[in-house]
Amino acid sequence: MMKFFMPTKVCSGKGCIVEHAAQLKTLGNKALIITGKKSAKANGSLHDVQAALDSLQIAYCVFDRINSNPSLATARDGARAAKEFGAEFVIGIGGGSAMDAAKAIAVLAFNELDDKTLFSGPYANPVLPIVAVPTTAGTGSEVTQYSILTDDRLETKSSIASEAIFPRIAFLDASYTEKLPVPVTINTAVDALSHAVEGYLSVKATEVSNILAAESMAIIGKCLPLLDKGPLGFAVREQLLYASMLAGMVIAHTGTTALHSMGYSLTYFKDIDHGRANGLLMHEYLEFIACHHADAVEKITGLLGMKNLSELKVCLDRLLKEKETISKQEAQRFSAKALQAKNLLNTIRKPAREDLEKIIAKSFAV
Amino acid sequence: MMKFFMPTKVCSGKGCIVEHAAQLKTLGNKALIITGKKSAKANGSLHDVQAALDSLQIAYCVFDRINSNPSLATARDGARAAKEFGAEFVIGIGGGSAMDAAKAIAVLAFNELDDKTLFSGPYANPVLPIVAVPTTAGTGSEVTQYSILTDDRLETKSSIASEAIFPRIAFLDASYTEKLPVPVTINTAVDALSHAVEGYLSVKATEVSNILAAESMAIIGKCLPLLDKGPLGFAVREQLLYASMLAGMVIAHTGTTALHSMGYSLTYFKDIDHGRANGLLMHEYLEFIACHHADAVEKITGLLGMKNLSELKVCLDRLLKEKETISKQEAQRFSAKALQAKNLLNTIRKPAREDLEKIIAKSFAV
Repeated sequence: MMKFFMPTKVCSGKGCIVEHAAQLKTLGNKALIITGKKSAKANGSLHDVQAALDSLQIAYCVFDRINSNPSLATARDGARAAKEFGAEFVIGIGGGSAMDAAKAIAVLAFNELDDKTLFSGPYANPVLPIVAVPTTAGTGSEVTQYSILTDDRLETKSSIASEAIFPRIAFLDASYTEKLPVPVTINTAVDALSHAVEGYLSVKATEVSNILAAESMAIIGKCLPLLDKGPLGFAVREQLLYASMLAGMVIAHTGTTALHSMGYSLTYFKDIDHGRANGLLMHEYLEFIACHHADAVEKITGLLGMKNLSELKVCLDRLLKEKETISKQEAQRFSAKALQAKNLLNTIRKPAREDLEKIIAKSFAV
Repeated sequence: MMKFFMPTKVCSGKGCIVEHAAQLKTLGNKALIITGKKSAKANGSLHDVQAALDSLQIAYCVFDRINSNPSLATARDGARAAKEFGAEFVIGIGGGSAMDAAKAIAVLAFNELDDKTLFSGPYANPVLPIVAVPTTAGTGSEVTQYSILTDDRLETKSSIASEAIFPRIAFLDASYTEKLPVPVTINTAVDALSHAVEGYLSVKATEVSNILAAESMAIIGKCLPLLDKGPLGFAVREQLLYASMLAGMVIAHTGTTALHSMGYSLTYFKDIDHGRANGLLMHEYLEFIACHHADAVEKITGLLGMKNLSELKVCLDRLLKEKETISKQEAQRFSAKALQAKNLLNTIRKPAREDLEKIIAKSFAV
């Protein structure tokens, strides 16, 4: 049994928002723009979205209060803003945080839901149409049915997973990523890489998701060595954004796996950036998988253009630099927490708690 | 600028209709089933669809009057049936003909359109949701926004191309293709091949369409030599259906090219099966392209697992057997007709009328 579903219309290229603006008119006459405090203003994406909306005489209101790892409370604030403004659709501009928040806001605008029901569904009332404008090349949220929010009740990140929150349109313009600081470019690229790698190692992998994952890994493999070698050209930025989108399409089908389960704890408890968290754990995670599925891991390193896992480790160590410190108690606590994550079940080799603890401990030389 | 849009949900695997039946309930409570006189009854597909609808208490009516290369008149009859029954969605079961007719019926059910406006749009009123169940592995219509109808006004086939007619759901169960006669299996596989090949040679090709085309060609290349060697196993049938779907996704983005333009004349005037028509012309078409784009054609033969175009010619000649006879006058007439086709403009090397005539003449040793 195979399923393929990817209803998001993807428009990409420099200037694509203005060029394809007319598509927005089909979604409504009032838009809530959801973004962070600064970056969308600095990188030109907010300006382009506003210009497109102005040209179509679509009224809009900007909700620019999204921080990294957005909370449920922020999403509820945004939903109130959407209701008060009478938004007919939402536009999320930013990294994963803004797009994920936009999705939750789209759900909450017309649905009164407690925290638990927000994550589980079902939603009795309509969900606002969503437009996604990624300004980093990493999360792939522009083409997924997931919204990842910080869930203080469970002390981790929790996901909404619903076909209702697939963005209707994703605009991919790599020029918005040109001024990203080097560590952000690295962390987000590693996030995209983890999506492609984990999709390939998911029990839900399909023929189509594997084609997309393979292409994504091949592109990221070529880009990785360039990321800390001075300014990236526009062509490389476009390739990274494209590979990140492909990896998003992959996890839309496969979900993520134990690597993300562990990464969420590092982010929640240690405030380590999401992509970086996955990157720090990736080598040991793949060693764990390789014990039972050497072929799959060899395929991955081959697609990345690397000889073996050691070469990947050297590359990631160089890019991610000095690691944070984790105590033995933390490794135990994080592995216990990761064991409860739903995405753990997607992993082709199911880890026990001890396996997770070992992966974390080895990754941080605990 | 790149665009990706593939909103059809694809469910595949043996028994997928019954397994995923619940999806149908979201489309409405009354369905018009659109199919041909015989094959859907014989191959089990109609039975499975009826069982699924019965289990959901969805009322249905069967319109089983679709022939090969369906006409506008047939589509109008179907639309009348849809209106009279009060259908809320349509289900096309069959080869390209039934699915293409279902799409036109879905448009015409609520839209009063003359022949010209049916092909050009726009449609003021809603288009009924469409479900597609392919019973051959060739047209890819289950995942395209095209409906190809015989257009006696223009003496050829004409296409509706509208995002409104992307099927909502496609059910791919290869068991319905198991009893196809050998020539039908061959002709439809060659049709799928022509979609993948032409998509690769289209000016509209994108990075994503090329990945899908490459995968489709690699699979079809492995299957081609088996097609006339006795019964195909279920696994091969599944691969053919999958490759045909991929090739459909390709042309949804790239359109078809001059090969289809010429093929339509062979079908309209000589009643040559659609896939076979493309197959008979394919070698000379590729020779024509290769003069200017040798790399692209080499890539294609490489993906097919063949050394060169001659090997493809030998393979196609063996599968398609004795060719029909075409006169010099016919070659002239068909090339003049093909020159007017819209899809001609998609070809990376634009042919003049003389080029088309030469391709047809050489293909049939005129």
